Amino acid sequence: MATKVSTVVPAPVLSTYEKHYDPTLVLTHPEFAVLPPTSEEIGDKSLNIACAYDEKHEVKMIRKPVPKAGKGECVVHVKATGICGSDVHFWKHGQIGPTMIVRDTTGAGHESAGEVIEVGEGVENLKIGDRVAIEAGVPCSMPDCDACRTGRYNACPRVVFFSTPPYHGTLTRFHAHPAGWLHKLPENVSYEEGSLCEPLAVALAGLERAGIKLGDPIVICGAGPIGLVTLLAAHAAGCTPIVITDLVASRLEFAKTLVPTVHTLLLNRTDSPEANSERIKNELGMMPRVALECTGFESSIRAAIYSVCFGGKVFVIGVGPTEQSYPFGYCSANEIDLQFQYRYANQYPKAIRLVSGGLINLKPLVTHRFSLAEAVKAFHVAADPSQGAIKVQIQD
Amino acid sequence: MATKVSTVVPAPVLSTYEKHYDPTLVLTHPEFAVLPPTSEEIGDKSLNIACAYDEKHEVKMIRKPVPKAGKGECVVHVKATGICGSDVHFWKHGQIGPTMIVRDTTGAGHESAGEVIEVGEGVENLKIGDRVAIEAGVPCSMPDCDACRTGRYNACPRVVFFSTPPYHGTLTRFHAHPAGWLHKLPENVSYEEGSLCEPLAVALAGLERAGIKLGDPIVICGAGPIGLVTLLAAHAAGCTPIVITDLVASRLEFAKTLVPTVHTLLLNRTDSPEANSERIKNELGMMPRVALECTGFESSIRAAIYSVCFGGKVFVIGVGPTEQSYPFGYCSANEIDLQFQYRYANQYPKAIRLVSGGLINLKPLVTHRFSLAEAVKAFHVAADPSQGAIKVQIQD
Amino acid sequence: MATKVSTVVPAPVLSTYEKHYDPTLVLTHPEFAVLPPTSEEIGDKSLNIACAYDEKHEVKMIRKPVPKAGKGECVVHVKATGICGSDVHFWKHGQIGPTMIVRDTTGAGHESAGEVIEVGEGVENLKIGDRVAIEAGVPCSMPDCDACRTGRYNACPRVVFFSTPPYHGTLTRFHAHPAGWLHKLPENVSYEEGSLCEPLAVALAGLERAGIKLGDPIVICGAGPIGLVTLLAAHAAGCTPIVITDLVASRLEFAKTLVPTVHTLLLNRTDSPEANSERIKNELGMMPRVALECTGFESSIRAAIYSVCFGGKVFVIGVGPTEQSYPFGYCSANEIDLQFQYRYANQYPKAIRLVSGGLINLKPLVTHRFSLAEAVKAFHVAADPSQGAIKVQIQD
Amino acid sequence: MATKVSTVVPAPVLSTYEKHYDPTLVLTHPEFAVLPPTSEEIGDKSLNIACAYDEKHEVKMIRKPVPKAGKGECVVHVKATGICGSDVHFWKHGQIGPTMIVRDTTGAGHESAGEVIEVGEGVENLKIGDRVAIEAGVPCSMPDCDACRTGRYNACPRVVFFSTPPYHGTLTRFHAHPAGWLHKLPENVSYEEGSLCEPLAVALAGLERAGIKLGDPIVICGAGPIGLVTLLAAHAAGCTPIVITDLVASRLEFAKTLVPTVHTLLLNRTDSPEANSERIKNELGMMPRVALECTGFESSIRAAIYSVCFGGKVFVIGVGPTEQSYPFGYCSANEIDLQFQYRYANQYPKAIRLVSGGLINLKPLVTHRFSLAEAVKAFHVAADPSQGAIKVQIQD
Repeated sequence: MATKVSTVVPAPVLSTYEKHYDPTLVLTHPEFAVLPPTSEEIGDKSLNIACAYDEKHEVKMIRKPVPKAGKGECVVHVKATGICGSDVHFWKHGQIGPTMIVRDTTGAGHESAGEVIEVGEGVENLKIGDRVAIEAGVPCSMPDCDACRTGRYNACPRVVFFSTPPYHGTLTRFHAHPAGWLHKLPENVSYEEGSLCEPLAVALAGLERAGIKLGDPIVICGAGPIGLVTLLAAHAAGCTPIVITDLVASRLEFAKTLVPTVHTLLLNRTDSPEANSERIKNELGMMPRVALECTGFESSIRAAIYSVCFGGKVFVIGVGPTEQSYPFGYCSANEIDLQFQYRYANQYPKAIRLVSGGLINLKPLVTHRFSLAEAVKAFHVAADPSQGAIKVQIQD
Repeated sequence: MATKVSTVVPAPVLSTYEKHYDPTLVLTHPEFAVLPPTSEEIGDKSLNIACAYDEKHEVKMIRKPVPKAGKGECVVHVKATGICGSDVHFWKHGQIGPTMIVRDTTGAGHESAGEVIEVGEGVENLKIGDRVAIEAGVPCSMPDCDACRTGRYNACPRVVFFSTPPYHGTLTRFHAHPAGWLHKLPENVSYEEGSLCEPLAVALAGLERAGIKLGDPIVICGAGPIGLVTLLAAHAAGCTPIVITDLVASRLEFAKTLVPTVHTLLLNRTDSPEANSERIKNELGMMPRVALECTGFESSIRAAIYSVCFGGKVFVIGVGPTEQSYPFGYCSANEIDLQFQYRYANQYPKAIRLVSGGLINLKPLVTHRFSLAEAVKAFHVAADPSQGAIKVQIQD
Repeated sequence: MATKVSTVVPAPVLSTYEKHYDPTLVLTHPEFAVLPPTSEEIGDKSLNIACAYDEKHEVKMIRKPVPKAGKGECVVHVKATGICGSDVHFWKHGQIGPTMIVRDTTGAGHESAGEVIEVGEGVENLKIGDRVAIEAGVPCSMPDCDACRTGRYNACPRVVFFSTPPYHGTLTRFHAHPAGWLHKLPENVSYEEGSLCEPLAVALAGLERAGIKLGDPIVICGAGPIGLVTLLAAHAAGCTPIVITDLVASRLEFAKTLVPTVHTLLLNRTDSPEANSERIKNELGMMPRVALECTGFESSIRAAIYSVCFGGKVFVIGVGPTEQSYPFGYCSANEIDLQFQYRYANQYPKAIRLVSGGLINLKPLVTHRFSLAEAVKAFHVAADPSQGAIKVQIQD
Repeated sequence: MATKVSTVVPAPVLSTYEKHYDPTLVLTHPEFAVLPPTSEEIGDKSLNIACAYDEKHEVKMIRKPVPKAGKGECVVHVKATGICGSDVHFWKHGQIGPTMIVRDTTGAGHESAGEVIEVGEGVENLKIGDRVAIEAGVPCSMPDCDACRTGRYNACPRVVFFSTPPYHGTLTRFHAHPAGWLHKLPENVSYEEGSLCEPLAVALAGLERAGIKLGDPIVICGAGPIGLVTLLAAHAAGCTPIVITDLVASRLEFAKTLVPTVHTLLLNRTDSPEANSERIKNELGMMPRVALECTGFESSIRAAIYSVCFGGKVFVIGVGPTEQSYPFGYCSANEIDLQFQYRYANQYPKAIRLVSGGLINLKPLVTHRFSLAEAVKAFHVAADPSQGAIKVQIQD
């Protein structure tokens, strides 16, 4: 008989990283300050200026101490950072899921690339001047962690994911990061592209786990930033034909400029999932094997379920409402697999390879660029649908 | 650009089997008759007596013509047939899903084994006297059928599945069947066990698609016939530890007699899925990698979702209510895979091998046995929970 | 205990197709004749002229009866046929492997596409005038055949593979074929491309079984026809970086015109596999995850083994000498998987989709075109390395 | 174009563990000594006595300093250690593969279990008195190591594998080990069994990567220690039928006592691989889907290749001669996969679960037991085939 353990999930031991990147160390540091919008310091390029959200749903500029490179760390001068939907969500709603809650001033940003300006003890794979993408999630890498030991480190319960509360983000001028989670950029990959490797990593993780293969007929639901990056990745993976759907015509037109062979399908909010699935199948000319669902909305997921072939898969990359209703009977009679993606593991090297190798061109995704001093303004543009932004970047 | 086809799913051509097994040929045959309960013919062993349900929710005995073995066919004297939950459901509710509707008298039964008594032209793998299990679903096997050509024949849209309306079932004395879908039984496998290979095939298909592996910690939700067969199969596959749950204590006791090392967990109908998941994890001593869900009920599926580890899988073998609500946010943040099983493909040879090789002992599952003449009585026992039947068999 | 069977592989029953396509029916037909090179009949477009090899290692023109469309069959006017290395091999060496032996006049060709000119009884998916690719291997599709029932029909022991002795090939004017193994060509796919879907199907089967994924760094060994088709497919699948190797510079230059981003590496016949593997890794800038080996030669396979990373795969698509020596110790200490491809299953629809969707451009591969009357000449060009042919086609 | 890196495999940075467990620290320590066979110290239970092999092919007792538990380490009083074939091979031949060379006195043993007697700083998952199995390979766990980061840590180039030169082994009284690589034993698992979890981990890794599934018909080649452990594991995984082969009748009889339903097949050294494959298939009653090859000899691997079905797999767990010749043509025409196992990753928790859950009974494998003082004698028994030892253990 198997031995019982008293508690199923033991109280986690704090990892070295959790202690090292404890946000309290920043918030209580004498050099920490919230900067009023008019502060001249915002424009001072010698300071470690950052952009943060807080528990009062405010987005604001802060001053943090300039970090020193510890053992195994590098300090990176962050050159480009994209604003993610989750950044806006934390600002506006203060919470994602039951555990990620903004309780204090929390630096934003996790889609970043920059230049190594200081190298700590024991770092041998990087040197000053190296151009790097920052993988923002730093798992514990300890052998007693099943997630880390088995290579599925996005499940690490001790992860420090910069910009996820309580940890400060990478939308800051100077950021200290473990060298092992910095990925060197080849010469032909810009900081802007390096920063975009983060959403690309999300899409690539989804495609890998969805088992996307050459020649797969697929539908991509949603033409927002994740949908578009997913489109680029699926096209690079040889999916054909591809239909992409959205409720907004201009997004579909943008999709068409990225991948001219894609079939676009404008859906109507009032149509039923069943009706939408018929249109998807007709536009594709067959039943998709996989639906890459990038909206997270129940009605879209239902349409995806009704679209895919027997034994097909609905792979949800998007994040959506907590509780959703699905057609169990249909899923059961058609062996529809439902899968979900949470962040990513082991995708950065591949992402950089694909961009460097010319298979994925991320550049058109950046529609708006701001300086670090304008970060708050950038956030307002990112949060305003009428601006039509795909990806807003802050560059320094 | 990919070429469009005018219709996505072309109007299916009737397969040879659909024509050959057209139930109208039976219903309009001069030898067909509905037999009143008092008919002496019911006891006449020379007649092709069968048990049927109809659109008025009645279960009754019928007389059918004695079949002749056509080209590629054998006639089987059916020796043992189990009553499946779906047989009872068709009787009582007249319908499963949107397309399987009892519209006329329809012979019951699809869990059968028997003796070959006639061999048609061109049959070379079987001879008179051979003992066989009958695989009740006969797909079209045509190369233009994606399902059949790719080996996933349970998806065949032209399948003749005996006992699924409108096709008559195998709970009959004499049954003509394509020789390629009869599976020879080794000497050490009885008709009773051969008949039980059908529910075993369902469980094995689930385990195979769920990717069950040696040493997997799992939970099995539900200790009804499918749950118990799944338990036997999971134990044979080396899962450990295994927890099985149910709302009825006697079923769990029965499970314990089948697999003494299993952990049983009596759930309370009023407890929340979250609370039940905690009890499952505590009883298992860890988080299961896979939940084999054999009830099909939303609350049980939800408990399964909350139980499995990050990246775990909830594999639903049971059939349940058409619409269900799931915790999207939890699934997404924990990469929970949801999968479903519909019938089976390529499982019979393996099922027979496992029984013959002594790895799975199906015999204890048969709790009630009736003669063919008593088939209606058998149905009433199977439909009455107070009888505590696991598997009711009709033997001839 | 498992029951013993007296023979492990039972004497196979001849399938319907084996009887129907029995070459003796052609060879003994009164209209059959070997045509001398000067025969005027060779130019008569009304006759069913074909090209054949025989047991005396001669390639020659023959006259066959014009077929009629039987039940489930179509007659195809073959419009384009490519010459495969195996065609040349059967001509020159009379044998491939221990069982495929040219014992009589055998029609050549299995890479064909054409126009449906007659439709047999029961065919509903095709009509006269339809443009189709011919899948040359016709498996038995019988449910008692494990290979066919499980979707791995390239293993069917009862397959009729046209042009593999003793069956006549598709390099003929009029060819009768089961409708289920004809694949309709979209308007934007030419007969030439339809014909090239055959070698593409080989490469696609290899990629699918090799588990090739987006972003994989790979090496392709050999830039002959299969190597080049594999290159096109691997590029379409998003492999990056890709190195292709060969002993002949002009082939590598050709590869570069097909996929400009490919890294080409000219190997030297006298260098050791170890030395070649170092050059492969240096050219790639990393260790490949997969080597797609398209030469079948021991030295090349060894170089591939030494190239791939720990846990990597050497997937051999090429056919080579029967006995080969491999570095067991190295494979073992580095968990190198060796896999092999034999023909293909379920690849044609995908191949056509990829060509139609613009992901793979096969057109540049055809370097030489001949009329059917010139088929013997075409064979001599295909067999002469100095001609530099990639793919020789006979078009009618 | 992908960026070139100057060197493909960068010169590896020494990991913390490589420095910490540097054998020079032991060999140059004042308390280190080679003990003559008559030394009374060998019997002194307070000393850290160990057994070692050296570059002169001698096996001998040594005295090492008693270790202190460093940060994250525990000191284990080793209670049971099995002698592995590789231990004997290092002693007798001084080398395995091109890189593992005995150049100095090297402590033996890597199959160990014991009791925690000291706990270092930061260790929270273990306490004094805990009973543990020692996972002897300690990879670097650094995020810049592809092997460790992706969960395939047996490929870690910086691994410290105790008893693989130059590192000292665990056949010692007191051994300091990173706590994360100690696996707690449930109460119902003895030290002896905990020690046997090491060879079990090898077999389990093989089964997992071979994709062994419930109901697989298989052949196991070789009934030595690895073959027998593989048999136990394959039986627990529900393989059926199973044939095990060997050249020695007594080993097969032993196999039969472990798994009474196994089919045993005594092979003849002079028979051809083809002839042996016929006997395997006849004994099994069918073609195996997988051959688990546990001898590493070419003739046995060839017999395995000829045995398995089309698309089958020959999975080599054994270690054998460096260069081997295989039937390429047969492998190619039958899509035979060849795979190999190198140590293991992520198998210990599963191994312990299987033993604790009663699915695998390792106890009968230990045929000879010696005290630590008798370790040299134990080595001579293990190395002498006439002793008929399966597993020789040294217990303290």
